[in-house]
Amino acid sequence: MIDHSKFPDPVYKETVLAPLFDAVKAHYADHMGAINRAHLVMLAETQILSSEQASAIANALVDIEAQIDVEKQVYTGEHEDYFFLIEAELRQRLGDLGGSLHTARSRNDMDHTLFKFALQSRAEAMMGQLQGLAAALIDKARQEAKTPIVAYTHGQPAQPSTFGHYLASVIEVLLRDCARLDAAIVGLDHCPMGAAAITTSGFPIDRQRVSDLLGFSAPLRNSYGCIASVDYITGLYSALKLVFLHLGRVVQDMAFWSSFEVSQLYVPNALVQISSIMPQKRNPVPIEHMRHLASISVGRCDMMVNIMHNTPYTDMNDSEGEVQQAGYAVFESGGRMIALLGAFLPACSINVERVHTNADSACITITELADTLVRLEKLSFRQAHEIAAETAKAVIAENKPLREGFVSFCRAFETEVGRSSRLGKEAFSQAVAIETFVAVRDRFGGPAPHALVDAFEAYQGDLARLVANKNARQKRRSTAQENLKKAFSNLLEI
Amino acid sequence: MIDHSKFPDPVYKETVLAPLFDAVKAHYADHMGAINRAHLVMLAETQILSSEQASAIANALVDIEAQIDVEKQVYTGEHEDYFFLIEAELRQRLGDLGGSLHTARSRNDMDHTLFKFALQSRAEAMMGQLQGLAAALIDKARQEAKTPIVAYTHGQPAQPSTFGHYLASVIEVLLRDCARLDAAIVGLDHCPMGAAAITTSGFPIDRQRVSDLLGFSAPLRNSYGCIASVDYITGLYSALKLVFLHLGRVVQDMAFWSSFEVSQLYVPNALVQISSIMPQKRNPVPIEHMRHLASISVGRCDMMVNIMHNTPYTDMNDSEGEVQQAGYAVFESGGRMIALLGAFLPACSINVERVHTNADSACITITELADTLVRLEKLSFRQAHEIAAETAKAVIAENKPLREGFVSFCRAFETEVGRSSRLGKEAFSQAVAIETFVAVRDRFGGPAPHALVDAFEAYQGDLARLVANKNARQKRRSTAQENLKKAFSNLLEI
Amino acid sequence: MIDHSKFPDPVYKETVLAPLFDAVKAHYADHMGAINRAHLVMLAETQILSSEQASAIANALVDIEAQIDVEKQVYTGEHEDYFFLIEAELRQRLGDLGGSLHTARSRNDMDHTLFKFALQSRAEAMMGQLQGLAAALIDKARQEAKTPIVAYTHGQPAQPSTFGHYLASVIEVLLRDCARLDAAIVGLDHCPMGAAAITTSGFPIDRQRVSDLLGFSAPLRNSYGCIASVDYITGLYSALKLVFLHLGRVVQDMAFWSSFEVSQLYVPNALVQISSIMPQKRNPVPIEHMRHLASISVGRCDMMVNIMHNTPYTDMNDSEGEVQQAGYAVFESGGRMIALLGAFLPACSINVERVHTNADSACITITELADTLVRLEKLSFRQAHEIAAETAKAVIAENKPLREGFVSFCRAFETEVGRSSRLGKEAFSQAVAIETFVAVRDRFGGPAPHALVDAFEAYQGDLARLVANKNARQKRRSTAQENLKKAFSNLLEI
Amino acid sequence: MIDHSKFPDPVYKETVLAPLFDAVKAHYADHMGAINRAHLVMLAETQILSSEQASAIANALVDIEAQIDVEKQVYTGEHEDYFFLIEAELRQRLGDLGGSLHTARSRNDMDHTLFKFALQSRAEAMMGQLQGLAAALIDKARQEAKTPIVAYTHGQPAQPSTFGHYLASVIEVLLRDCARLDAAIVGLDHCPMGAAAITTSGFPIDRQRVSDLLGFSAPLRNSYGCIASVDYITGLYSALKLVFLHLGRVVQDMAFWSSFEVSQLYVPNALVQISSIMPQKRNPVPIEHMRHLASISVGRCDMMVNIMHNTPYTDMNDSEGEVQQAGYAVFESGGRMIALLGAFLPACSINVERVHTNADSACITITELADTLVRLEKLSFRQAHEIAAETAKAVIAENKPLREGFVSFCRAFETEVGRSSRLGKEAFSQAVAIETFVAVRDRFGGPAPHALVDAFEAYQGDLARLVANKNARQKRRSTAQENLKKAFSNLLEI
Repeated sequence: MIDHSKFPDPVYKETVLAPLFDAVKAHYADHMGAINRAHLVMLAETQILSSEQASAIANALVDIEAQIDVEKQVYTGEHEDYFFLIEAELRQRLGDLGGSLHTARSRNDMDHTLFKFALQSRAEAMMGQLQGLAAALIDKARQEAKTPIVAYTHGQPAQPSTFGHYLASVIEVLLRDCARLDAAIVGLDHCPMGAAAITTSGFPIDRQRVSDLLGFSAPLRNSYGCIASVDYITGLYSALKLVFLHLGRVVQDMAFWSSFEVSQLYVPNALVQISSIMPQKRNPVPIEHMRHLASISVGRCDMMVNIMHNTPYTDMNDSEGEVQQAGYAVFESGGRMIALLGAFLPACSINVERVHTNADSACITITELADTLVRLEKLSFRQAHEIAAETAKAVIAENKPLREGFVSFCRAFETEVGRSSRLGKEAFSQAVAIETFVAVRDRFGGPAPHALVDAFEAYQGDLARLVANKNARQKRRSTAQENLKKAFSNLLEI
Repeated sequence: MIDHSKFPDPVYKETVLAPLFDAVKAHYADHMGAINRAHLVMLAETQILSSEQASAIANALVDIEAQIDVEKQVYTGEHEDYFFLIEAELRQRLGDLGGSLHTARSRNDMDHTLFKFALQSRAEAMMGQLQGLAAALIDKARQEAKTPIVAYTHGQPAQPSTFGHYLASVIEVLLRDCARLDAAIVGLDHCPMGAAAITTSGFPIDRQRVSDLLGFSAPLRNSYGCIASVDYITGLYSALKLVFLHLGRVVQDMAFWSSFEVSQLYVPNALVQISSIMPQKRNPVPIEHMRHLASISVGRCDMMVNIMHNTPYTDMNDSEGEVQQAGYAVFESGGRMIALLGAFLPACSINVERVHTNADSACITITELADTLVRLEKLSFRQAHEIAAETAKAVIAENKPLREGFVSFCRAFETEVGRSSRLGKEAFSQAVAIETFVAVRDRFGGPAPHALVDAFEAYQGDLARLVANKNARQKRRSTAQENLKKAFSNLLEI
Repeated sequence: MIDHSKFPDPVYKETVLAPLFDAVKAHYADHMGAINRAHLVMLAETQILSSEQASAIANALVDIEAQIDVEKQVYTGEHEDYFFLIEAELRQRLGDLGGSLHTARSRNDMDHTLFKFALQSRAEAMMGQLQGLAAALIDKARQEAKTPIVAYTHGQPAQPSTFGHYLASVIEVLLRDCARLDAAIVGLDHCPMGAAAITTSGFPIDRQRVSDLLGFSAPLRNSYGCIASVDYITGLYSALKLVFLHLGRVVQDMAFWSSFEVSQLYVPNALVQISSIMPQKRNPVPIEHMRHLASISVGRCDMMVNIMHNTPYTDMNDSEGEVQQAGYAVFESGGRMIALLGAFLPACSINVERVHTNADSACITITELADTLVRLEKLSFRQAHEIAAETAKAVIAENKPLREGFVSFCRAFETEVGRSSRLGKEAFSQAVAIETFVAVRDRFGGPAPHALVDAFEAYQGDLARLVANKNARQKRRSTAQENLKKAFSNLLEI
Repeated sequence: MIDHSKFPDPVYKETVLAPLFDAVKAHYADHMGAINRAHLVMLAETQILSSEQASAIANALVDIEAQIDVEKQVYTGEHEDYFFLIEAELRQRLGDLGGSLHTARSRNDMDHTLFKFALQSRAEAMMGQLQGLAAALIDKARQEAKTPIVAYTHGQPAQPSTFGHYLASVIEVLLRDCARLDAAIVGLDHCPMGAAAITTSGFPIDRQRVSDLLGFSAPLRNSYGCIASVDYITGLYSALKLVFLHLGRVVQDMAFWSSFEVSQLYVPNALVQISSIMPQKRNPVPIEHMRHLASISVGRCDMMVNIMHNTPYTDMNDSEGEVQQAGYAVFESGGRMIALLGAFLPACSINVERVHTNADSACITITELADTLVRLEKLSFRQAHEIAAETAKAVIAENKPLREGFVSFCRAFETEVGRSSRLGKEAFSQAVAIETFVAVRDRFGGPAPHALVDAFEAYQGDLARLVANKNARQKRRSTAQENLKKAFSNLLEI
């Protein structure tokens, strides 16, 4: 059988090669330039190429960059991909020497280096957004440290707390999510260059130097792993998934809190779609958008991780071009979600009047009355409990708030204990007040002001450490850029 | 607290409203025109609007269509969304009457009608692709009905079969996948119009008529369900997921078959990326692209279904605008995958020589020798088995193909049975030939020619039924378009 | 290198073989008996085995069944698996003839036949539960056809409807889910027997006959597909996933409706966990359990489908033993979820008083006032709308229910129209009453009584068809069992 | 409406309460004892309870433990759950005082403390298994440091490497997976006790002390977060998912390597299921079992994470009882998978002869010939490449291994360069030998012996740190147990 067919098949060209070419232009062209420059500097420094050879290539690269408008390149099939296009331009200018730039490297190690660059910038931008969100939430939580809310368990009113305390719990999860993302970013920070096709090279390359010039923290050790392991991808998207899964749960609370019947959260007009005929109808639609933008982001993260399922552990397109680009959509939908939440939460406020109404109706401070009796009157828990329950039952029957139930309380106390309580009318009201409930809970992690101030300081410290990590990475990378620029300039002038 | 904020918040505008507006322009503007026309016709026919009113609105709609260039509209925030923009244009031309078009309908029922339109065209296009693939595979399978292959179980060579037989099994799954998709498309074919906001309307609307004019098979009954149930989405993407999950398994076989060491499948040059230095290195990269395009599509389908998890069963943005658009990416990646597979499989061929080599090395016809002895010599299974095993062991020790093992066979037979076999040399060779193995398996569903011809006819029939379903739907829709055009024209001329 | 190791490795034995053996005992032993009997009957009828041979084997099978206590078998490693244990028993009783039962079959086709049996019984049981749930919901919906509820969009009160109308929308989705499951069950109803290892057999087997004796609807055609295609699994679990995903959304509504502040749904004491001290605290915990039992079931379905991702399309353990057993957990968690929902929903009731309070506060009937004015006073939509909006604003300012807003209405009407409205006080109250709102919505699919009665009849019809499908399958299977029993008995007595 | 129903509804009892009760007995009873003791010690130390009270309770607890056989308890519905059963026993012995043990705590904080205990022991056991696997792989890799293999890219033979080098890449991923799991275990190490129902308590509790006595690293700060945040669950199962996803990719390689046609990996008889008739047929079935056990574990991890999707961020059953127990199945399937892989990989060996055959056929050392010419002959890349390609083409045409292609090489060299090469026959053979190819790749991360030795030392160091982390945690926990024992004993004797 003779095979007269010629690469590429037109369907393959249209469905794969052309889209890939366009994507390389959009996402990787700049980074490929940096890799070329860093690799060339290393080839010269290790004398794999002579100074003259390196200089000639360096000047040709500058020349190509000046003359070729990347944006305008169209996939023709003449060169298999963008990489070969550059190589062809080099050869055209330098003859055989043009091929020398590719000594001791391969598209395998170059590709994963490019992917890491593209993920670094996206992941760092999202980390920046999340750190900004954390800072905004800490600010908001400090302002709302004393604003009462009804706290729910199992979807039902359970206890009073403060908005600041609630937000603090959100901040803690967010900071842990940031820490998980921080660890995942470390997974992007090891350089595959020098792995070449699989096994490094017989030439005396200096992997550390290339890694340094490209701003990585270190070369990734095992060369097969450089091109075949995918955990930099799965680790990143796993961490991102949790961000959106967890933020989505907060959004669910906001949906409930802002429902008409609960109305604990007031969403300002700027974030509410209204009905011209139903004056009460205020749809806080951004909440829904945050929920599904979070869900979309979760789904896209899942896609990225699950693509790797049951793929062989060899260098594979399943972790490359098209898949990588599909993943970038996470940063688009996720970035919008975080931006919206960062605008939404600080703009909202608590409807304190409604909090009191709901709290009163549900008698949610009644447990503190029992605790007070245990402490003040040295009653047994059973007795205190009995009196509190009776009091609650009575005020509900009379449709009164608990704080107006002093008479009922006195009756219940005498029935149970056989004497009057030491708790006066004023003290009774105070014992069942939301403010008291909160104020006495000044334990580690509780809602009382002192405990919250401690917490905010701790969060600020955690956040500062995360910010410092990010800044250190950025610094390392910008220093590397300068070093690369200098080293490459030196080549030009040989 | 006074709320001076004004809708829309700039972040909300940028992260949600503007993207939504652009998406409506891109995906729904045409369909919204059809809904407006059909609804207006019905309002006139039911005399909810007078002929004069309806005619005035009709002419204004034509006018707006002529004057407004949808493509050029930019989201400004003046109108909440695209829908309100059209309504504003109507009011500008018709005063109060402009609002009458919206009698007895709502954005709720309109939106889900739009989404169904958008999914119908995409799902039908993909159905067309899949039917085309099925037809191409049936053709290919007919051509390859007698081409031998090694069939694997547990990843190891097990028995000979034919490429046609293998493809037939792929076709069966594909046809069942098409049937599942067909059923899911039925789920897109019920019209929500008339559900209005939730509960239909107090006006005497005719839901059947609108459904007919819009080309649906029938109105969807329960009006709350029209806007709140999401199973037209989940049903569709569940069905699509299985298409790509199952095709991806075939791709895995192609990857294995075309691996260098197996080489059962020959991939033509047009679909192979080669190495200029390693002449043996032929990377059939399209296989990898098909695998991950399938995986991407699977992941996107999962995303769409899982977004609905734990959402409330009320009309919700989770099943609307942005989410719907995120789903369209399935048709993009999935469409490319199917196109590529449809180009790939017919272009490939079986390396028959290699099939024989691999089959010989693995002695995969040996079971037929045993069966032959049972039938011909009336041996017990144990005896026949024993003789076959001895024969196989002998030829492998001598590194010969089984068909040259007549002497070993004779020896084994005599040892076990104590006499010579009736099976002559020629008959022995034939008994262990791939061709014989296949030819005797002429049961229902087997690889023998007759059984395959029956199968292909059955598949052709199944496919024809699916094609007829699709054509009937298209016919219904195009008839509806004509009817709508006529009915609307009549309005213009009143 | 000489390999002295002996199968099985102790770790393999402990981690795989022993658990598999136990699972076969638990799930498949009975079905394996049926397969043995049906296959034997066919071998006799096709004269692949003589009557005497078949009879001897039949009697040995009866003997083994009487003597071997399946429950007590322990995996020893002597026989690779349960199948070989039975074969060994046959050989012990019959010598070489014992092996003949295995003529023209293989563990491959037997295994998938066993898996289909096991899934059939589970899927049918779940179908029975779902049909029972549908019937219970139709009953409940009929009872509650006139019970008012507040219907929500975007999580906010939007319009009045009835509990019956809401349940009807749930029923429609449920019936469609049942139809999807029904189609998936059809995928379990084609018999793999006769596929043998991959390619059927050279013996003149009768696949149709075995299929009939085992109660399948037909043999599955392509023999490679019989053992390699997995869509009977993926199709089933995909369909089941949607059941639980969709029911979970209803559960979310129930959670919201039964929240303290909304209280539209009254959950009876039998299904509420209470607090001894907080008399208002009623935790309808079954709702949460339904939610996560649904989520667990969804997750388990996903697992089953996703296991197949990127597996090769050849016979593979990924679709067999352990995986199949992992899937059965869906029926356990899902079955509990359906049972609980079937107990919960009928036991709950609507707190009508609360519905009126919430409806009043949210002015949700106001749109009907506008519609009434359009119809009665022939006002333009804008005017009617304006009057309604003014009326609503006024009553809300006065903190009155809308029905007491006649004076405000008159004032608004006169301001806008310049004359008194024809709508008298009584008529006004009626126009804004929930009952009127519902009563006028008697379109196809609306909440008015007549429309609902039509709907319930339609659902009853749909359900009856699904029940009939199920019964027809059961009948076919039980008839097959009797036929097999007779045919096998005949063998015994030869 | 009067509600005469009584908790619990029989269906609820059967589908939820009874199974939950049994699960508590199985998984949590011991840990609940520890919590009771630690909390009591703290209550005494903070003088919330007097010494006498505490001592009485302590003695009653000892008494109950001695008298109640947990295993034998059956759910009757008398006590809502296991917790109430113990409380009832306390009250029976101590009267009102029995309730005092529950001062300043709640089932909310207790439950999540129990769940963390249960996950700690499972996660640590799995960490132990993974560390054992890592150690075994390092051992194996050291032994196989020089064993040649064919390394694949895109599923095709690409370059020679060594089994040790391949395993090293697996080890690197595994160590990173262990590091991710290590971080997730830290997430289990913060104590929720003292959060009480939501907001801590008005009593002067000492959260740090309880945390210490229970062996946690610290109390978890925000008290709402203690009961509502689920990232200890999602973080753990996300990390575990990656373990199995990544190991599954290695398994895919093993499947390919051990396929009949490739046969690079020899699987010993102890791990192979054979055919009695096909002597060549060796099914390395454990590979398949590892693949689907990994897939099952991945699916179960996904289930656990996804259950949390769109749940509200308040204390919820979605993160509790039944869900937690569903998650434990990951440790069962995953534990078996790791055990099997740990038995499998060390038992396998490389079929070196086959490696050479495959390498020869694919000419995979040819690139090193080109590199050699560049270095030795100072040729341009193009020239060296040309000569190598010609040589390869020639030997393939002659069906010879590359090392026997000296004559072809000489001819190609002279044609291209116009003179003889300095590379003699011996040197040529050596230049294209697998051993040379590997030996010259002694860069950081390469396969040459020196580079590998460095790598193994680094891995050993990483592993030692992970082991030390685990040991430190175990030590902390066992010290805490002793401290608790002592402190509790002291109470008994007051």
